[in-house]
Amino acid sequence: MTVQTKPTTVTLGPITGSRKIYVPVEGRDDMAIPFREIALDPSAREEPVRVYDTSGPYTDPSSHIDLEQGLLPLRAPWLARRGYASVTPREVTAADNGYAPADRLVTPCPAPHTVFEGKPGQLVTQLEFARAGIITEEMIYVAHRENMGRARMLEGAEARRADGEDFGASIPAFITPEFVRAEVAAGRAIIPANINHPEIEPMAIGRNFLVKINANIGNSAVTSSAAEEVEKMVWATRWGADTVMDLSTGRNIHNIRGWIMRNSPVPIGTVPIYQALEKVGGEAEKLSWEVFRDTLIEQAEQGVDYFTIHAGVRLAHVPLTASRVTGIVSRGGSIMARWCLSHHRESFLYERFDEICEIMRKYDVSFSLGDGLRPGSIADANDAAQFAELETLGELTKIAWDHGCQVMIEGPGHVPMHKIKANMDKQLAVCGEAPFYTLGPLTTDIAPGYDHITSAIGAAMIGWFGTAMLCYVTPKEHLGLPDRNDVKTGVITYRIAAHAADLAKGHPSARLRDDAVSRARFSFRWQDQFNLSLDPDTAQAFHDETMPKEAHKVAHFCSMCGPKFCSMKITQDLREEAARMAGMESKSAEFRDMGATLYVPEHAPAKEDR
Amino acid sequence: MTVQTKPTTVTLGPITGSRKIYVPVEGRDDMAIPFREIALDPSAREEPVRVYDTSGPYTDPSSHIDLEQGLLPLRAPWLARRGYASVTPREVTAADNGYAPADRLVTPCPAPHTVFEGKPGQLVTQLEFARAGIITEEMIYVAHRENMGRARMLEGAEARRADGEDFGASIPAFITPEFVRAEVAAGRAIIPANINHPEIEPMAIGRNFLVKINANIGNSAVTSSAAEEVEKMVWATRWGADTVMDLSTGRNIHNIRGWIMRNSPVPIGTVPIYQALEKVGGEAEKLSWEVFRDTLIEQAEQGVDYFTIHAGVRLAHVPLTASRVTGIVSRGGSIMARWCLSHHRESFLYERFDEICEIMRKYDVSFSLGDGLRPGSIADANDAAQFAELETLGELTKIAWDHGCQVMIEGPGHVPMHKIKANMDKQLAVCGEAPFYTLGPLTTDIAPGYDHITSAIGAAMIGWFGTAMLCYVTPKEHLGLPDRNDVKTGVITYRIAAHAADLAKGHPSARLRDDAVSRARFSFRWQDQFNLSLDPDTAQAFHDETMPKEAHKVAHFCSMCGPKFCSMKITQDLREEAARMAGMESKSAEFRDMGATLYVPEHAPAKEDR
Repeated sequence: MTVQTKPTTVTLGPITGSRKIYVPVEGRDDMAIPFREIALDPSAREEPVRVYDTSGPYTDPSSHIDLEQGLLPLRAPWLARRGYASVTPREVTAADNGYAPADRLVTPCPAPHTVFEGKPGQLVTQLEFARAGIITEEMIYVAHRENMGRARMLEGAEARRADGEDFGASIPAFITPEFVRAEVAAGRAIIPANINHPEIEPMAIGRNFLVKINANIGNSAVTSSAAEEVEKMVWATRWGADTVMDLSTGRNIHNIRGWIMRNSPVPIGTVPIYQALEKVGGEAEKLSWEVFRDTLIEQAEQGVDYFTIHAGVRLAHVPLTASRVTGIVSRGGSIMARWCLSHHRESFLYERFDEICEIMRKYDVSFSLGDGLRPGSIADANDAAQFAELETLGELTKIAWDHGCQVMIEGPGHVPMHKIKANMDKQLAVCGEAPFYTLGPLTTDIAPGYDHITSAIGAAMIGWFGTAMLCYVTPKEHLGLPDRNDVKTGVITYRIAAHAADLAKGHPSARLRDDAVSRARFSFRWQDQFNLSLDPDTAQAFHDETMPKEAHKVAHFCSMCGPKFCSMKITQDLREEAARMAGMESKSAEFRDMGATLYVPEHAPAKEDR
Repeated sequence: MTVQTKPTTVTLGPITGSRKIYVPVEGRDDMAIPFREIALDPSAREEPVRVYDTSGPYTDPSSHIDLEQGLLPLRAPWLARRGYASVTPREVTAADNGYAPADRLVTPCPAPHTVFEGKPGQLVTQLEFARAGIITEEMIYVAHRENMGRARMLEGAEARRADGEDFGASIPAFITPEFVRAEVAAGRAIIPANINHPEIEPMAIGRNFLVKINANIGNSAVTSSAAEEVEKMVWATRWGADTVMDLSTGRNIHNIRGWIMRNSPVPIGTVPIYQALEKVGGEAEKLSWEVFRDTLIEQAEQGVDYFTIHAGVRLAHVPLTASRVTGIVSRGGSIMARWCLSHHRESFLYERFDEICEIMRKYDVSFSLGDGLRPGSIADANDAAQFAELETLGELTKIAWDHGCQVMIEGPGHVPMHKIKANMDKQLAVCGEAPFYTLGPLTTDIAPGYDHITSAIGAAMIGWFGTAMLCYVTPKEHLGLPDRNDVKTGVITYRIAAHAADLAKGHPSARLRDDAVSRARFSFRWQDQFNLSLDPDTAQAFHDETMPKEAHKVAHFCSMCGPKFCSMKITQDLREEAARMAGMESKSAEFRDMGATLYVPEHAPAKEDR
């Protein structure tokens, strides 16, 4: 087997039927917010539809992509003004790459990277700025991004928001930078943005913002390479991943991460205990605070934006899992349980939590407090172990906040529908409204191979109830590592769940795209329908399978019903006829106040065959 | 293009990892209930898992399948005892097959078929028997089938049922024939079973039974053939379709239906107005009561088990759709709206509803009262047109019941999550608890190509709330006619939704399969995990993509984590170690009452590298 020592290419170019636009921010020459704009057929006489875009410069044909140089550090000037000290980075050791032999060592990413850290007394984290009443550039960016670049309140937005059930969330019709600041200050939202990751396009995770999704990538000891992982990151963000977690566990873990960090336009999360375990040869008993601390600093310097830390797996919680059907299914959770039990000691992550906070604050690495005891089966959902850990996570949230750190909380897992809401309610209650970030949950265990679907059901529901970010599940869950196709399927499926949640919460801009699709559908603007969909290529390919001819793209029917049975065609014909009868002139005006006039008048021409 | 004039082959053989069994019914030599039994690895020391089976004789290697002979008429002896009159069937006309020219005419299915009808005063429908206090063979069959052939109450079933939220449903821990009778008598459940369809394995649709799913098949004027449609029927039931609707609209509609009827082990539904429209050359205005009546009799004689009839689309409702984004999206609804408007008359389906009931009662064809005004977009959900029609359907339900007819009610469509429950609540309230049968609903419009997923979210939820049958949506929805793969994806997706709903309702037997999968997963019984899943072939193929070697089927890890990071392996190791320390002997007993003893005792061997 030959080893690719570095990534060379990734997927580039716009998503079919759309173009990248940058909307300037008034009074800010250093800021332009990226969106994707979908132009509609002129017959529609509608404005282009603007959609949220996570894909970074890769979908912009005018951008110059060089993986060895990394992305342009968008945030560098903002960070420079904050005056952080550049420091000599920690020395990279052979252990950082799992002692990969020279002929299999991934080349380090040569992109320039100066390491900064905040000093005591300096404001570093977005939470610290927010509390100090300071609106950062990241907050301004987020506000415009969440508004889809609109300069003012959406027409009818208040009304649309009223058409929803938000379970106590309070999504304004228009997001101001001050609103973002207030949400971050309250701990209700985070902006994961390590000061050593200047390349990201800032985004927010919180229940008063659009529901976000995360895609997991990462090699394992068994499979995958650096080139594949960088491509997966680009591919996942292309289709809509708001953040990416690098869950690599094999060799070359440090160097692969370097390539990902320097080339990622979205925040990157990791689980540092995975690398720490590699450093001690895979034996959980040998883990120590020292090696964990070293790993935190290593990754924070590389720019990782959030760390999953399973500090809620306490010694006393482990026995609560003894009667479970599937025990502990979180890798980090099981590693820490093993450590606690073999040493018969309290978790060092719990005991050293203050020190962990101090380190993470220096770089503004956000916490993603891991749910190491999440249920791995329907049988284990909402059990004592799970909720005991959640209460500990609530306690740790407050400590992290005291240190000025941003925090979100990870959630399950496998949960039947009737037990989902209790998860959200309890999380809100015990974690002070810190953003919830769940894996699914899967609503049944019986469909390996389709767990993107079993979990999309739970994800949509918990997103509606208030979860701020949904971690995707791919069709390969429980069976193998996802490939590129699985990553796309997982991302699209979770974009569906997140959007369904935004709609149900009454997010003021969510329905714009649904309505645009529906109008296109009703007007037989097939190309617009494809382009407006989450996956234009698949929509068009499916259509073309049965009706491949170009003419059919404008046909007023499709292969499902044929011309005689097309309900939309019949309805349109009816409306036209009614309008003609009523003597109305303009087709666009005809249905506004039609009401009873839709009846065909009595003096309609007699039909031959009544 | 050559035309296949008849179907010759269909998919045969057992589903991977399972075998067909027939469980005898005590005291009934004429009845044995089919199930699929999944044997587990001997190491599991568990009973085989029995699952509900819709696939008919096609998955039984010992059955002789001959499409020209049709399936064995299981119900024939039961029906014979009821003494219905055999009648001379209505003559088949050229119009019945859409005037297909001789060289393109599908051969009629030669399977023997005597046509029966009930006379006035005779008990014919399952509702009539139920009201008379008579338990039919169909009811006995259904009871045993719903119990998965168990002879007594499930252990712990009451407790498990309590672990659910059933929103007012009342699912007993054990289903008796008398319970089935009572549910049918109350109109809360139907057993669609035309007396001219003796080949079916009876099943029930009602919210106190397992949630069912329907798969739509059918050719259109544009595409598809007889052989394909019969194979789709067999294929759909193989993967779990409880009923199949034949929505054909092209030529040969009568003869294709004949092949489907004689070879279907599940109830078949149709929308008779489609064929009626073909008979009048596709012009809705030319429809008449006479041609519709003729079509009802034609199809009832063939044995169709339920008819979708859009009698709720009244003249006065049509103007309510004028301001909709997507107008009328039901084919049947739009056809009737067109008829009403062009004639400026009340719908003949509504006006002749008593006569329709009289016809359907004679054969025990169940009503599926169509929602011709269902919303076709998020924008139109729960609007005045939709709910006005639903109220009419409630009124018609009572009329049909007065005539002794079985009734279910069709529901939407496109509905955002926060508006789903209102649909169920309103349906229960206005339709007297007649079973609800919904199409999805789709929870967003923005993902054509993935509408099996957008709708599985809504389907799982509305199934939980009380919908008795979920009509599948395939990935091709809005784009084209589903092929064989799409049918399978749609069926598996809807089995997920239905099962997630059963779990959440607290159905006493639903969790058995989840738990079996979870135990297999935790014990690394890979083959058991595949075999227990809804789609064993896909689960195994996905696993083998990254870990193809045979040895990996018994590996205590997988490609996702590799051996060092496998949480389940770590947990198992921990448990074993703890058990050893505690001096326990049997692995199976070790965790029952473990509790605090899971701690490693203080005198554990010192670790070298603390």
